[in-house]
Amino acid sequence: MVQSNNLAIVLVSGGMDSLAVLAHAKSIHQKLALVHLNYGQKTSQKERLCFDKICDHYEVEHKYRKVIDMNFLSQIGGSSLTDEQIEVSIFKGDSDEIPSSYVPFRNTHIIAMAVSWAEVMGANKIYIGANEEDSPGYPDCRPSYYKIYNELIKEGTASANITIETPIIHLKKSQIIELANKHNAPLEYTWSCYSRSDKACGVCDSCALRLRGFKELNIKDPIDYVNRNE
Amino acid sequence: MVQSNNLAIVLVSGGMDSLAVLAHAKSIHQKLALVHLNYGQKTSQKERLCFDKICDHYEVEHKYRKVIDMNFLSQIGGSSLTDEQIEVSIFKGDSDEIPSSYVPFRNTHIIAMAVSWAEVMGANKIYIGANEEDSPGYPDCRPSYYKIYNELIKEGTASANITIETPIIHLKKSQIIELANKHNAPLEYTWSCYSRSDKACGVCDSCALRLRGFKELNIKDPIDYVNRNE
Repeated sequence: MVQSNNLAIVLVSGGMDSLAVLAHAKSIHQKLALVHLNYGQKTSQKERLCFDKICDHYEVEHKYRKVIDMNFLSQIGGSSLTDEQIEVSIFKGDSDEIPSSYVPFRNTHIIAMAVSWAEVMGANKIYIGANEEDSPGYPDCRPSYYKIYNELIKEGTASANITIETPIIHLKKSQIIELANKHNAPLEYTWSCYSRSDKACGVCDSCALRLRGFKELNIKDPIDYVNRNE
Repeated sequence: MVQSNNLAIVLVSGGMDSLAVLAHAKSIHQKLALVHLNYGQKTSQKERLCFDKICDHYEVEHKYRKVIDMNFLSQIGGSSLTDEQIEVSIFKGDSDEIPSSYVPFRNTHIIAMAVSWAEVMGANKIYIGANEEDSPGYPDCRPSYYKIYNELIKEGTASANITIETPIIHLKKSQIIELANKHNAPLEYTWSCYSRSDKACGVCDSCALRLRGFKELNIKDPIDYVNRNE
């Protein structure tokens, strides 16, 4: 990777993956701008709290923090994360099936937001914690999707100098945890559970993958669980 | 074009171009779902009113009408259409320069919205009134941009069967008016002015292009102007 001191934007969900990406980006760029998207998911308040704690931890100035409301995604519906009528699916092992937590075309919205902000701020890199293992059935978490998105940005923006970086796309969950720990990232400020906000449920797709990652490394996840299911 | 009776989504801004596209799509598809995006532009209330009148005119059922709030674009800023600090540019003739009304990456957001809704509704076509003449300096109004966007949809959606249709992309403004008139579209319910909502200003980029189109056809624009500047 080419060293750059320019401003970069990092999409920070409040989860473990985007924190690892942020910690990695911080080792490359002089200045970071962090953006958090609230798209009406069931655990959005908890994730917002994690974002704030992460910003404070990294002493990010207020003009470089942005929270954007994407509640229109819940108006559109179709996902268990935003629609109370649809049950969050229980992890059944790796599969190519589209999980019920899939928000149609979600990452396209999220990245478009970051691209618009990058144009205004003059940033030329956008970091996202997309990961194949994390989302085996999500069509917009594959490397081929990001390759085409970079072409779309080149074609559809005025500055044409912005690219998406997906540094953890091929990493296993345990390797993401190692990356975060290498950079002393505060994993205790992250949240992955799709179902609950008080203690993590331990059984949804996202909890199951997270717990498996820690188990492989033989270290303890610093957050609280109702049921560790290990 | 292949005849299809399936459901199609039409992006209806309240302007003349999207009305012509809607009238055209109505001649092809049995069922249409109309979506209107409010992105905090100065004339948004007027455009919303036009959308409602157009829906009523075509007797669109309420479940097939959707208004989505995209105010986050004004939070991001950078355009004269959403930022009160930036002046709306006066039309200076055709030019490849990016106008001040450019909202960074705007069409990417708008189309992503339509794609998400299309996935939920089971529609396989999305019609948009993108036009090169209308937006000579807008990077996201070029055919090459839509070609790549279609690839992104194919890669990034679960159904992978949705495509964007841009039937007026190569038409001159006067040809768009002819298309609308051919299908008896209610042009009196459209609004194009970027500056005003009571009467059209007649001098912004958008008014100037609209008036030029009517002048070429030697017919009178049915909406009111402060200054026709013809």
